[in-house]
Amino acid sequence: MTCYLKNLCSPDDLDKLDFDQLAALAEEIRELMIQTVSRTGGHLASNLGVVELTLALHKVFDSPRDKFVFDVGHQSYAHKILTGRRDQFESLRTYKGICGFPRRDESAHDAFGAGHSSTSVSAALGMALARDMRGEKHKVIAVIGDGSLTGGLAFEGLNHAGHLKRDLIVVLNDNEMSISKNVGAVSHYLAKMRLTPTYSWAKHNIEFFLRRIPAIGDSVANTAERMKSSVKYLLVPGMFFEELGFTYLGPIDGHDLPLLVEVMEKAKSLHTPVLVHVLTQKGKGYAPAECRADKFHGVGPFCVESGKTIKAAQAPTYTSVFGDAMIEMAEKVPQLVGITAAMSDGTGLDRFAAKYPDRFFDVGIAEQHAVTMAAGLASQGKRPVVAVYSTFSQRAYDSLIHDVCLQNLPVIIALDRAGLVGEDGPTHHGTFDLAFCRIIPNLTIMTPKDEAELRDMLFTALQLDGPVVLRYPRGRSDDGFTMPEQPNRLPVGKAERLAPGDEVVLLAAGTMVQSALKAAEMLKQSGVQAGVINARFVKPLDTELILELAKTARYLVTLEENCLMGGFGSAVWETINAAGLTGPKLLRLGLPDCFVEQGTRAELLECLRLDPPGIAEQVAAFIGVEYHGPAEA
Amino acid sequence: MTCYLKNLCSPDDLDKLDFDQLAALAEEIRELMIQTVSRTGGHLASNLGVVELTLALHKVFDSPRDKFVFDVGHQSYAHKILTGRRDQFESLRTYKGICGFPRRDESAHDAFGAGHSSTSVSAALGMALARDMRGEKHKVIAVIGDGSLTGGLAFEGLNHAGHLKRDLIVVLNDNEMSISKNVGAVSHYLAKMRLTPTYSWAKHNIEFFLRRIPAIGDSVANTAERMKSSVKYLLVPGMFFEELGFTYLGPIDGHDLPLLVEVMEKAKSLHTPVLVHVLTQKGKGYAPAECRADKFHGVGPFCVESGKTIKAAQAPTYTSVFGDAMIEMAEKVPQLVGITAAMSDGTGLDRFAAKYPDRFFDVGIAEQHAVTMAAGLASQGKRPVVAVYSTFSQRAYDSLIHDVCLQNLPVIIALDRAGLVGEDGPTHHGTFDLAFCRIIPNLTIMTPKDEAELRDMLFTALQLDGPVVLRYPRGRSDDGFTMPEQPNRLPVGKAERLAPGDEVVLLAAGTMVQSALKAAEMLKQSGVQAGVINARFVKPLDTELILELAKTARYLVTLEENCLMGGFGSAVWETINAAGLTGPKLLRLGLPDCFVEQGTRAELLECLRLDPPGIAEQVAAFIGVEYHGPAEA
Repeated sequence: MTCYLKNLCSPDDLDKLDFDQLAALAEEIRELMIQTVSRTGGHLASNLGVVELTLALHKVFDSPRDKFVFDVGHQSYAHKILTGRRDQFESLRTYKGICGFPRRDESAHDAFGAGHSSTSVSAALGMALARDMRGEKHKVIAVIGDGSLTGGLAFEGLNHAGHLKRDLIVVLNDNEMSISKNVGAVSHYLAKMRLTPTYSWAKHNIEFFLRRIPAIGDSVANTAERMKSSVKYLLVPGMFFEELGFTYLGPIDGHDLPLLVEVMEKAKSLHTPVLVHVLTQKGKGYAPAECRADKFHGVGPFCVESGKTIKAAQAPTYTSVFGDAMIEMAEKVPQLVGITAAMSDGTGLDRFAAKYPDRFFDVGIAEQHAVTMAAGLASQGKRPVVAVYSTFSQRAYDSLIHDVCLQNLPVIIALDRAGLVGEDGPTHHGTFDLAFCRIIPNLTIMTPKDEAELRDMLFTALQLDGPVVLRYPRGRSDDGFTMPEQPNRLPVGKAERLAPGDEVVLLAAGTMVQSALKAAEMLKQSGVQAGVINARFVKPLDTELILELAKTARYLVTLEENCLMGGFGSAVWETINAAGLTGPKLLRLGLPDCFVEQGTRAELLECLRLDPPGIAEQVAAFIGVEYHGPAEA
Repeated sequence: MTCYLKNLCSPDDLDKLDFDQLAALAEEIRELMIQTVSRTGGHLASNLGVVELTLALHKVFDSPRDKFVFDVGHQSYAHKILTGRRDQFESLRTYKGICGFPRRDESAHDAFGAGHSSTSVSAALGMALARDMRGEKHKVIAVIGDGSLTGGLAFEGLNHAGHLKRDLIVVLNDNEMSISKNVGAVSHYLAKMRLTPTYSWAKHNIEFFLRRIPAIGDSVANTAERMKSSVKYLLVPGMFFEELGFTYLGPIDGHDLPLLVEVMEKAKSLHTPVLVHVLTQKGKGYAPAECRADKFHGVGPFCVESGKTIKAAQAPTYTSVFGDAMIEMAEKVPQLVGITAAMSDGTGLDRFAAKYPDRFFDVGIAEQHAVTMAAGLASQGKRPVVAVYSTFSQRAYDSLIHDVCLQNLPVIIALDRAGLVGEDGPTHHGTFDLAFCRIIPNLTIMTPKDEAELRDMLFTALQLDGPVVLRYPRGRSDDGFTMPEQPNRLPVGKAERLAPGDEVVLLAAGTMVQSALKAAEMLKQSGVQAGVINARFVKPLDTELILELAKTARYLVTLEENCLMGGFGSAVWETINAAGLTGPKLLRLGLPDCFVEQGTRAELLECLRLDPPGIAEQVAAFIGVEYHGPAEA
């Protein structure tokens, strides 16, 4: 093994290395990534794909004077390793460790934070405008993947950037392999052509050349992949960008470092909006990831030799139970339609898609469109279910209010990854949804205590006449679940009493139900018999029960894996207030008014005192009882 | 005057009329619109522009079997008049009257509601998918303006629609007049060409022809108009849509009814995605609106003869004071930058734009981009102020959370039209922002009691280090204001005591402060001396004061022009709860959990019992005092 990486202190050191040495360095970076991610989990395929691109960017540009804006940011590992974070890289995605995404507070080289898709062009344009107003001369470079281009925000940014005609470089990291293979043979030629002064001649030839390649985009399935290639097809001749005011360079081979450097130098020499179209291979340099780029997009710990994921056989996740339930309900409800925004695997809809291809739509990274299209479907009698991560649903907020709820259309939003997601950190936690959803009129919000109840809730939601949000977390419930043979229809707005106890009552939403049950067990050690109630519905609340509790209970504790501000506990408090009552004493447990950091879910919950011992301790302090701790602690 | 309109019962009756009679009918419809809007106010220019287009659509298609989806919906008056709402049309935009936008609950002919921009293609696609799943054969037609195309959601919809290859018609209503003039001479020719079998020949000729027209898009100013024309320039040769999978027909003269019918028949005969590019003139047929389409976009009552707005000389609005303050602050704060999303007039930034063209950016209808670009500017030391209507800010929610607040960047969001906007109704009320904004960490939220305080708040916000939301209503404060010579820096998180009274205290946010003062006056008639406090900050709250009140006041009343769920009152209640207190008795006044209808702001506030008498009555009932009413009532 060579050791260029060991001696690399800053990106400036890249100047000392020739292309052969840089190629060796690339292998070292890949090795470090593979070894690290095999332990910590993370985004492997996308990061392996951009090693040469990142080296070229840092060789040609002068970070942090020049600003890199990574779209989504799940391709920034090489950038982090090259910018002073090699030694800390082993802490990737761990509590207090290096973040899996760029963060402004982590390094001056991370010019702009990310985590969500399609923001880079807008942010980079803002930076370029600021630079120009100050009369500075540095470069701003957005690095955006082909998938991110399907997001409307990216289009808004390109549309504006092309018009303002500022000095701005957009690197399109195009890693869709089927297209890459199709056009790979001509990419070097095209790039060379494009860099010569005989541009218009070359351009005509390029178009001619490309149009003769058979079936680009025709053979691709009806999924996000098709969405991506639609946009890409526009790009290949560069027309799309040229018309929008960009100078188009490419496509070029994203693993040919000398070519990358040459083209980036050319881009640097221009002072207008430039689009550099770079073709990369996801997973490049690690065979298991090259073969299964989807699997290695976001991956847990795995065995480096075999590429196999390290995990014991485990119970199904909320996601997989949701996926199964969708298939089950599709049989019962012929109007049911499944929709995802580029997350068919992540939301568990992949098997539904395979079984019901005509009732499934992957719209690409386009959450607004997913929800508004669902409203259109629902207006014609369909029962669309949009499965989306909680954090990404923020982008569809207006569609939910204006297109779905205002018209009271029966669209179901399945909010996966709600609450703390763990290692992906603050950009990905879904910790606001209960608060921003429950203020919308006409909306019903359910959150299950376990996977079996999620199935019941989907079943119930499909029988309601208006919009519904189902809110459930990443992973599995702590204590597993028993799946009944048939799903149950739940009475709307009715909570479920799980453990007896009248003086102290824990009223819990979703993931906090099982924690509340355990905390109640622990409190028994201190002589406290706390009742536990599964709220089930965050909207409408079980007003009758809450008002009964307000009269009978001495202490009421609400629990939620959501921001306390405006959340479930506040809703309970509002209900008591609206009835003109002041008592009982109420303790609201949930997430504080800050962005929660990365770490395992267990670490974060412990830290926030929302694990069962933390809950028991807080409840004990609230009711003025000395806490003896659980016997098993 | 002819009388075709009087005898028109349904769109089917159009079949009985020849083109000359339809032209006369068009004039009658225009006359009805002009007379009505001159009394009620409304969107005049856009509606006058689509009279022939609407006649053609209803002549060719069979509504409600065929579905029209109007984007934004501010061009649906002719549609409403033709579909059984002629006689009710005089109630346009009034309380319980005909809505200024399509509404599903108003008519079966309103296939999908709207009010916000860029949703039509997504909704129409959903409807087309539902149709195909049911094996039905009707047509779905989205009607979208060129301005709406700059919204990313429209791009997401087109991108998906073109790929799914369903039977879908998108009518691009292109009413940008400079372009209309440029290409008007060739539009008839082009449309004819495009309808012949010699399509590819024609297409080449079209491109050749168009490229020779000088300076399309070059002479336009750096505003939303440029954004629009950028997108339009892409369209002119139809490449953009053709590449996205649409068959492109146009451009055609949108006031040539026979041609419109011919082209729509052609579009109807196809069974793929079709884009019909129609050039219309805003304000067509009413000289004052033709000359000043911007003024007659959304207009209040006016004199039909002169086109002059009917209103007494009045005090400045919040909007105009904000505009003045931006100019004033720009002198003090060289880093200040103003941003709007196609609302430079509406947000009062037009004069700022004229004075500081290099520090002003109109990004078009692209709220997400506006906020994310602002984050980019702020990351480089600029102080961007994004002025946007509260209701449209919902579309930038993720940008606010993920790009601005997570990175704690000093972006100021000026939320105009917050609270009840009046006649535009439920799609336009800004009644959720306090609730969905206050849950975001790092954000400061201020809401002024009058226009002078808005200036103070802008001044204060520019001295803070993190993100700020300024929230203020449409129109003027009821009681006017006194503008001090210099703006005051307000202490963050500190409320302002305005009227003495300790036992009963009214704690009011924004617009409700003056109402609370009046209600307190009225309550004096009943022997109640209610204290009045101007909250000023919704986040951070004046915790110290609230906790003091919790101990000293017997009755506390919160007032806000925002949804009660999760709003300002809930925040106050949470604060009291978090301190472990239960008292005092708290009454939260604000908007109930439903979408508020249209009507004048005064009507709506009265109806919701949020006008001063309503407040006084509710407070009296709350504290158990018989209400004698105001002396002046």
